[in-house]
Amino acid sequence: MISSAMSFTRITLAVLALHLLAATGLQAADPLPSWNDTAPKQAIISFVEKVTSDGAPDFVPAAERIAVFDNDGTLWSERPMYFQAYFIFDRIRALAPQHPAWKEKQPFAAVLNDDLKSALAGGEHALLEMAMATHAGMTTEAFHDIVTAWITTAKHPKTGRHYTQMVYQPMLELLDYLRANGFKTYIVSGGGIEFMRPWTARVYGIPPEQVVGSSIKTKYEVRHGRPALVRLPELNFVDDKAGKPVGINQHIGRRPIMAFGNSDGDFEMLEWTTSGPGARFGMIVHHTDAEREWAYDRDSSVGKLARGLDEGPRRGWTIVSMKNDWKTIYPPAK
Amino acid sequence: MISSAMSFTRITLAVLALHLLAATGLQAADPLPSWNDTAPKQAIISFVEKVTSDGAPDFVPAAERIAVFDNDGTLWSERPMYFQAYFIFDRIRALAPQHPAWKEKQPFAAVLNDDLKSALAGGEHALLEMAMATHAGMTTEAFHDIVTAWITTAKHPKTGRHYTQMVYQPMLELLDYLRANGFKTYIVSGGGIEFMRPWTARVYGIPPEQVVGSSIKTKYEVRHGRPALVRLPELNFVDDKAGKPVGINQHIGRRPIMAFGNSDGDFEMLEWTTSGPGARFGMIVHHTDAEREWAYDRDSSVGKLARGLDEGPRRGWTIVSMKNDWKTIYPPAK
Repeated sequence: MISSAMSFTRITLAVLALHLLAATGLQAADPLPSWNDTAPKQAIISFVEKVTSDGAPDFVPAAERIAVFDNDGTLWSERPMYFQAYFIFDRIRALAPQHPAWKEKQPFAAVLNDDLKSALAGGEHALLEMAMATHAGMTTEAFHDIVTAWITTAKHPKTGRHYTQMVYQPMLELLDYLRANGFKTYIVSGGGIEFMRPWTARVYGIPPEQVVGSSIKTKYEVRHGRPALVRLPELNFVDDKAGKPVGINQHIGRRPIMAFGNSDGDFEMLEWTTSGPGARFGMIVHHTDAEREWAYDRDSSVGKLARGLDEGPRRGWTIVSMKNDWKTIYPPAK
Repeated sequence: MISSAMSFTRITLAVLALHLLAATGLQAADPLPSWNDTAPKQAIISFVEKVTSDGAPDFVPAAERIAVFDNDGTLWSERPMYFQAYFIFDRIRALAPQHPAWKEKQPFAAVLNDDLKSALAGGEHALLEMAMATHAGMTTEAFHDIVTAWITTAKHPKTGRHYTQMVYQPMLELLDYLRANGFKTYIVSGGGIEFMRPWTARVYGIPPEQVVGSSIKTKYEVRHGRPALVRLPELNFVDDKAGKPVGINQHIGRRPIMAFGNSDGDFEMLEWTTSGPGARFGMIVHHTDAEREWAYDRDSSVGKLARGLDEGPRRGWTIVSMKNDWKTIYPPAK
């Protein structure tokens, strides 16, 4: 009897405690303070409210609230070239003493002569060759440390900021807002998966297991009794264009309900996401702000956006103008 | 002033509420009631307590509490053959009318003649051929529906149970116990990733995005304006043996701190997990119970376990005897 009475008291106290907690909820502050009160912000909030209102026709259970974000040009800048390209060039400089032949071999020689235009003239093929030469041949843990050392020290040539300070403040708020509403947030990027994972938790609040990206093969080896995963100079997966829905299926195993991109490389990801049944949301970040960031779309070699602008609106996708819809671009400088 | 005083009151109430909630915590019940009070249960609890005690030398932050589980023979039975093989054979029977040539073609003809021994005589190669012929050629969503229909109706020839009722009750309790202590639980199986995902959330509480397995390639296509991922008869990844650490790195991006397996196909996963720095836990489920389940190890064609028995103990891995350490094997029949 005593034990039962005690349990009853405890349960009563627990119920009381929950009521008190609910009563302390302050009026919600604006969750997206860096967004102007224009259509995109309203579209985001309206969508989140309808899929999280229990009993509403568009309600989506928390487990299915998957939101996917491209990285380059969507969560951080990508001009004048992908930030991972700066990493590749810095690695070539660091590794050059071990590769004397690079002095005579393109595109490596161009990098060593600081002629980045020539280095990039070979397009994706040349970039891939340089990535393989600098991203393979070490263990996954050694590569993790190399990326961490670089990302915490390297600075963007134009802004002088660390690359992780060139993330978009409005998107950081959006990530937080979605997670506060039960969403699981993923990166789905054409960039290297192991180039992003060392810092996405700190910068975006996205843990390594929620990062999908391009990858090279790895091989399990036991060296002197110590197991390691060794990175091989062999492409495993390209997470871009039609590869993005494939990568999403491989890693997540279900179709997202929200997708955010900025270039035609994200078109299939947005198409796949928004063509599922039930409530769906697609958004394209349009780089329109030459003053605070960069302005580019149809004719850009990086982040080309044409089909998304042409077809996006009639597919119901929201187009964000960085110039008109965002109050700030980057977080305050540290 | 009023607003500030109100906030203060609210915060005070919130703190009070949290204290009350803590005070209502009843004495914890045994989290592993289907485990005998033998060494393996004690090892699990002792490990979980030391990595979750804030401030203790072996404390591991929640984000890094990753536990990986093999599926066949570790979470559910695998005798007399892998359950996915029953699925493959049932698919061959269902698809036979569309493939008249199978009547004359091995190993398909053997399956259609209910001669499963001959069908399996070709080993892994024959099984893979049958898997490709039955698992490819449809969209990922159609395959999801096929698996769901099969898993909810098919029954094991010996026990008469649904396959999902041949999961191990002690392991279900272990999964719950780890999650209650902040662990993220993953399946890392040689079985097909899309064969498991449709039912692992319901059966194990493990969502699709936390399932790692073998896979075939998929291709993104837009058919009549509707996008789909089409399954191709081409191997993508074999998540077995040295492939398991590779699959873990690809999907999770960090090294687990606990690993659970039952065969030498799990050896590298246990080795990779337990050789990291800090507190580590490896466990092998040894099938020793011919009466309640099956007894097999060194000489078995399915779930062969030899190296794990020889080297596991001196590597600090815990060996579970199903006969001695588990009170029950399967959940109560429904």
